[in-house]
Order: sequence, then C-alpha cells, then structure tokens
Amino acid sequence: MENGTPVWKFQGDEGLSAASAITVRGILNQVMENLDVEDGRVVVPLGHGDPSAFPCFRTTLVAEDAVVDALRSAKFNCYSSTVGILPARRAIADHLSRDLPYKLSPDDVHMTVGCTQAIEAILTVLARPGANILLPRPGYPYYDARAKHSHLEIRYFDLLPDKGWEVDLKSVEDLADESTVAMVIINPGNPCGSVYSYQHLKKVAETARKLGIMVIVDEVYGHLAFGDTPFVPMGVFGSIAPVLTLGSISKRWIVPGWRLGWLVTNDPNGFLKGTGVLESLKGFLDISPDPVTFIQGAVAHILEKTNDDFFSKIICILRENADICYEKIQEIPCITLPKKPEAGMFVMVKLNLSLLEGIKDDMEFCLKLAKEESVIVLPGIVVGMKNWLRITFAVEPSSLEDGLGRIKAFYERHAK
Amino acid sequence: MENGTPVWKFQGDEGLSAASAITVRGILNQVMENLDVEDGRVVVPLGHGDPSAFPCFRTTLVAEDAVVDALRSAKFNCYSSTVGILPARRAIADHLSRDLPYKLSPDDVHMTVGCTQAIEAILTVLARPGANILLPRPGYPYYDARAKHSHLEIRYFDLLPDKGWEVDLKSVEDLADESTVAMVIINPGNPCGSVYSYQHLKKVAETARKLGIMVIVDEVYGHLAFGDTPFVPMGVFGSIAPVLTLGSISKRWIVPGWRLGWLVTNDPNGFLKGTGVLESLKGFLDISPDPVTFIQGAVAHILEKTNDDFFSKIICILRENADICYEKIQEIPCITLPKKPEAGMFVMVKLNLSLLEGIKDDMEFCLKLAKEESVIVLPGIVVGMKNWLRITFAVEPSSLEDGLGRIKAFYERHAK
Repeated sequence: MENGTPVWKFQGDEGLSAASAITVRGILNQVMENLDVEDGRVVVPLGHGDPSAFPCFRTTLVAEDAVVDALRSAKFNCYSSTVGILPARRAIADHLSRDLPYKLSPDDVHMTVGCTQAIEAILTVLARPGANILLPRPGYPYYDARAKHSHLEIRYFDLLPDKGWEVDLKSVEDLADESTVAMVIINPGNPCGSVYSYQHLKKVAETARKLGIMVIVDEVYGHLAFGDTPFVPMGVFGSIAPVLTLGSISKRWIVPGWRLGWLVTNDPNGFLKGTGVLESLKGFLDISPDPVTFIQGAVAHILEKTNDDFFSKIICILRENADICYEKIQEIPCITLPKKPEAGMFVMVKLNLSLLEGIKDDMEFCLKLAKEESVIVLPGIVVGMKNWLRITFAVEPSSLEDGLGRIKAFYERHAK
Repeated sequence: MENGTPVWKFQGDEGLSAASAITVRGILNQVMENLDVEDGRVVVPLGHGDPSAFPCFRTTLVAEDAVVDALRSAKFNCYSSTVGILPARRAIADHLSRDLPYKLSPDDVHMTVGCTQAIEAILTVLARPGANILLPRPGYPYYDARAKHSHLEIRYFDLLPDKGWEVDLKSVEDLADESTVAMVIINPGNPCGSVYSYQHLKKVAETARKLGIMVIVDEVYGHLAFGDTPFVPMGVFGSIAPVLTLGSISKRWIVPGWRLGWLVTNDPNGFLKGTGVLESLKGFLDISPDPVTFIQGAVAHILEKTNDDFFSKIICILRENADICYEKIQEIPCITLPKKPEAGMFVMVKLNLSLLEGIKDDMEFCLKLAKEESVIVLPGIVVGMKNWLRITFAVEPSSLEDGLGRIKAFYERHAK
C-alpha cells in the first residue's frame, strides 16, 4: 500500500448543485433550516403541495386496497417493461380518452416515476445544442432545473395576473425563433390556482402550430378545479399541434409518495412521426428507473373504482380553503391576491414591501416568518416572481386559519 | 389558425436511442421479438436476472407485510425527503455496518429508485469534460449506457476467466491516467457468478488509492454467495480508498419491481470532503425522482425481521441450480464454462462456433435459439464478450433443465 496522503482525482459536478439550488425543494430546505426550535408551536407548512399528512386529505381506501391486492398477488414483484406494463398504460389511455374527441392507445402512454420523471424525460429528449424552450413565469422551477441540467436554453413568457394568469401569447410569439422546440403550460395552474378556458387553450395550440413547436402540458392538478371554469385537457387540441400531457395520481389521489406518473402523446394526426421524439423517449426510459411495478398493477383499479364521493370531498375542502385564504388575505395589508384561486393547491400573492420595516425582499420575508412564526411559505423568486409569495391552501382548514393568522401577526409586528 | 402542413422544429435526441441500444433490456427486447409465436412451448427466460415470477422464488411474507403495514399507516403517502427518509437511511446504515469495521451514519446513505438510479447518480456526478472511468469487461452494460449519456469516457479492464474472473489489476494501472476518476467492480459478479476474496478486494482498494480514484462497488448480488468464498463488502476497505457501495433489496429479496436501492459512501477517513462529490450527489437527488415513500417506510422492518430461513432457502435453490447448470453444460459441446458459479444469478459460457454450422456469432445464436427453441439467453457481446453467452440459472429448477435441454437439442441440430 502507498503511504502518505493520497491525492484524489475525482470531483463532483458543480452544475448539479447549481441546478438543485433553484428547485422548490432546495429553497424550502433553506427556509426550514431557519425554523426556531425553541418555538413550542406546531409548524404550519404552507410551502409545498403535499397535504397527504392531514387526516382530512387521506387518500381513498379504494386506492390503498388496490395497491395491497396487487402486492399480495405476487404478480408484480418483477421488473417493469420499459414504457410501463400494458394494463397500466391501457388504463391511463382509457381514463384520459373519456375527455378527448379521439381515443388514445396504450402505445401513447409512458409510465413514469411521478410527474417529475415525465418532465425530466421530455426535456432530456428535446435538448440539443442551441435549442431553446419557452417556460411560463411564474412556473414550476423543476422545469428550469432540468432544462439547465440538459443545457436547454430557457426563455420565459409571462402569465398575466390581471387576466386570470393567462399566457401572454404575444410574448410567446416574440420569444420564439428557429431554435425553439416547445412551450410549457401548467393547467390547472401551479403556482397560480388558475384554470384556462377552452378558448384560451385552443389559442395556445394555434400559436404552437404557427411557431412549429410542441405543447408540453402539465396536468398534474387536472380535475382539481372548483371555480366557474371547467378543466379542459390540452389533449383536446392535439390535432392542431402535438401535445405531450404530463400527469400523475399524486395530487388528485393525494399520494405524491407513490410516485406514479405518465407522459402521454396526444397526437391523432401523427405530427410526431419522423421527428425521432418517440424513439428518443423510449431510449430515455430504457436507461432510466421505472415506477414500482405493483403500483402500476393497481392503477387500473384506482382509476376505475374510485368513488366520486372521494373526489367531491377533496374538491369541497379545497374550495372552502380557497375561500378562507381569500378572506384572511384581505386582512393582511402587506399581501394582495389578484384573483381568488379556482383550482389546484396554491395562490400567488403580491408582497408590498413598502408597508414593512426592515424586510428587503420575499426571501427575507420567508426566512423571518419561519423563524418568528413557524410558518413556511415559498418566496416568489423561486417560481420567477420576485417579491411575491406562493402559499398553499391544501392543508387542514384549522392549520390554514392558524397559519394565515400568524402571517397577520407577523405583519402587525413588522408594519411601518 | 394557420393552414397548410406545419413544419415542426423539434426533434428527439438520437444519443438516447444509441445509449439504450447497448442495454440488456434493449437487446433482450430484440431477441424476444424473434420468438416464434407458433411454438406451443412455454418460453424459458434465461436472459435476465429476475426470478420473481417463479413460485419457488416468491419473496418472504415478512417483506410483503412490512410494505402493507407502512401503506396502511397512511404515514408514508407524502413526498420523500431528497436523500430518503431518515428511518430508511438509518436502517440501511445499521444493516451494512454489521459487516464493517466502523459504523456508518444515516448521512452516509442515499436512497435511490433501485440500484439503477444509484448508478445513474454517481456516473452523472463524476462526469466532467475529459474525465474517464474504468469499467469491467465483462460487466453490466447499464454502466456503459449511463457513462455514454453523461459523456464520461469509458476504458475497459479485463476480468480474468482463468483466475475466477478476478480484476486484471495490471491493466487497471495501465489504463488509468490523470483524468481517471473511478473504477467499477461488481461483486458478487454479474455476469460471472464469481465472488472476490478479501485479499483481492484489498488489492483493488490499494490500486485505487495509488491511482487516486474511487471504487464504485455494485453489491446488488451481495450475500447471494453459495460457494467456498465468503462475500466481503468492499466497504471494509473504505479507509484505504473511498468506496461507494451500490445496493438494493431487488435481488436478495427477489423484488426488483419494488425499486428500492441505495448509494452509500464508505469513507471513514473523510477522503470525499472537499471533492464536491457529496454536494453534487445531493444536487442530483434534488432534481431526480425518489423511491416510493411507503416502501422506504417498510425497509427497516424488512431488513431486521426477515428470517434466515428465507435467505437459506433462496441460497439453496441457487446452489442447486448452479449445479444443474454446471452438469448440463458439460453435455453441450459448443459451450464451455470456465468455472462453476459460486454466487449471483448468472454464468458466462464461451461459445465454440467452429462446432456449429451456419451461425456466425453470439447474436445470431441467440436469435435462432429464441426462434427455434423459445429459449432466451443474452449474447455476450452486450456485456463486452463477443461469442460468449450470459445464462441465468435463477429460474425454477425444472425450467432450467428444460431450457438447457433445448439448448442441447439446438446444438445437435446445428452441429457440424
């Protein structure tokens, strides 16, 4: 054996740390590190969209039973096939086809490890030197982190708070050039709690067609709409431009830890043929981890047998929570809500720093709020909106009232 | 809306299809497409290492119960934390520490989506322009696919069939240069069915230290040793050079579809400090999908409570199957086995094409064997050994005898 101090030649890729620093998870970890362990009160987690820990948001027994049955059958301990097992893909195809003017085939469906991996998959597939992608601002920063990791240039188009957070289609057209490959929309909106109308989605598709780009639509909050605008899947417009729909059971069934998602090609006119996208997608999935086989084995039962009562209950809690949010925020002068949320689990509120003493930006607001009030909210900068905040209302109603009450107390203590 | 045929500007990354074309999964898909649907016989799958479908290899009820209990508790429907939930990391640390001269901390453990994601993680972390990695030949081609995808140059060192498939350490030293970052070993061996001695592993560590590189050890077949050489974890030598241990419950518990693995840093001397590897690893996991939370929640119980009887039963079947393999292969002149396997689920056999009429290489052998005999084996070229075959003996014993009998019949029909 060599003596003396060895000199190691390897080193970690700094780009990975940089990419993670812009994720919701990375920033929430920072905010949570600022919690005061001496504060005897329960932490109110208004930072991320995972209400699964609250009893009122417990998933349906139908879903639990389906997973237990699949596991106990011992038929699904095996490796999955590359794109997911056929019964799962067929179930997703049938489920989504109910809201479409054409029928999806199981071959249109790719099972993924949550919606997270679906995002990773399509951004990796589309990355090539010089290519750029159009992302919404505000948006979901996992797209940014993954695009950055794949060296896909990011260009931001604005969502318009005064128009129900609709896409600024003019700015989309201005941003796009010969190297633009896709635009991403999130509907229902994360972080905005908005739902796009049929007409607006159709215009999105027409714009994409005009620009020669695909539409990647994140429908992870699909069907969690409780306002006046009904949820319309973007796939309805797949005959205008190719639509890649990303989804999962994480939000609607409140089981993000089950890690089951999908990437579905809505392409009745075969626009994707000859572009290599499908082959590349299969290649990506061949060299990537698969979702758990027995959860795939359960998904047909979960989709078919979940009772409407369960969905109604969840929607009802979310609607009531959105109301609580709307009312309580009126009582806190330093934050304003452009529009009452009508879907999903989040609202974006604008911070008026001129009303506060000694708080310079949204990040400092969140760090101090965590320290003084044990309330976690996400600085808007993370989702592309400096001096805004993203607040989730998907918590137990009493926690929400408690948390918003503490934000009010925080304001009163720091008001000019 | 624009009329006329739209011109789409996006395209799929061809590199992904190329990377997938060298995976076991990609090649087995090709071989299986050659099966003759008219053949009334059951297909004998000697291609991949997943015996979970065979009743004699059913996992223990202890593991199933642990997963059901974790799911029913509703405590683990939530998102996981970045590196995995603490009880899971603590359980893995305690479990692995039993065979080490020092104690691992939960912070040394990173939970992954199967061992697959652990491989992806470390190869992504180590990739930087100009860097190279040393991989074993024969090996497990997922390493090649992932290194290729990350633009990490691959250099192959040989395993020596006449020396129990030990690493040719001389060739490791010759291959390494200033840009070499790591060497990979798989112990117990895939695809060789070998187990490395304490002394050999110590020499591997000393060589790594001399070269200033880390050892990545794939112990996914850990403890599945049934010959004279006992399994020694590479982590034992973590004080000589930094060792990254990759593992999972997939093989020992016969549940590859549960997708629970780990990446553990065996680094009692803190060699990794200051190299950025740990930070980069955390960054990677921040922007990557997580293993299912409730399976993480079950792993402590699985590791602690699985009865030795279960392990003994599995080892006993594997040993008997290895004996069947060894004997039956003696009766097939065109293939030879350098050494009786003493671990894992595979043997490598050398193909003597001069004894066969009209078969030009291992790929053609496998394609014709699939077509004529409905037996799947893996062409050696996939694991780096042209005109060898990789055969799994981890199937029901009667299937193994049936499959090897069909290979014999195939030989007799094609013998010169």
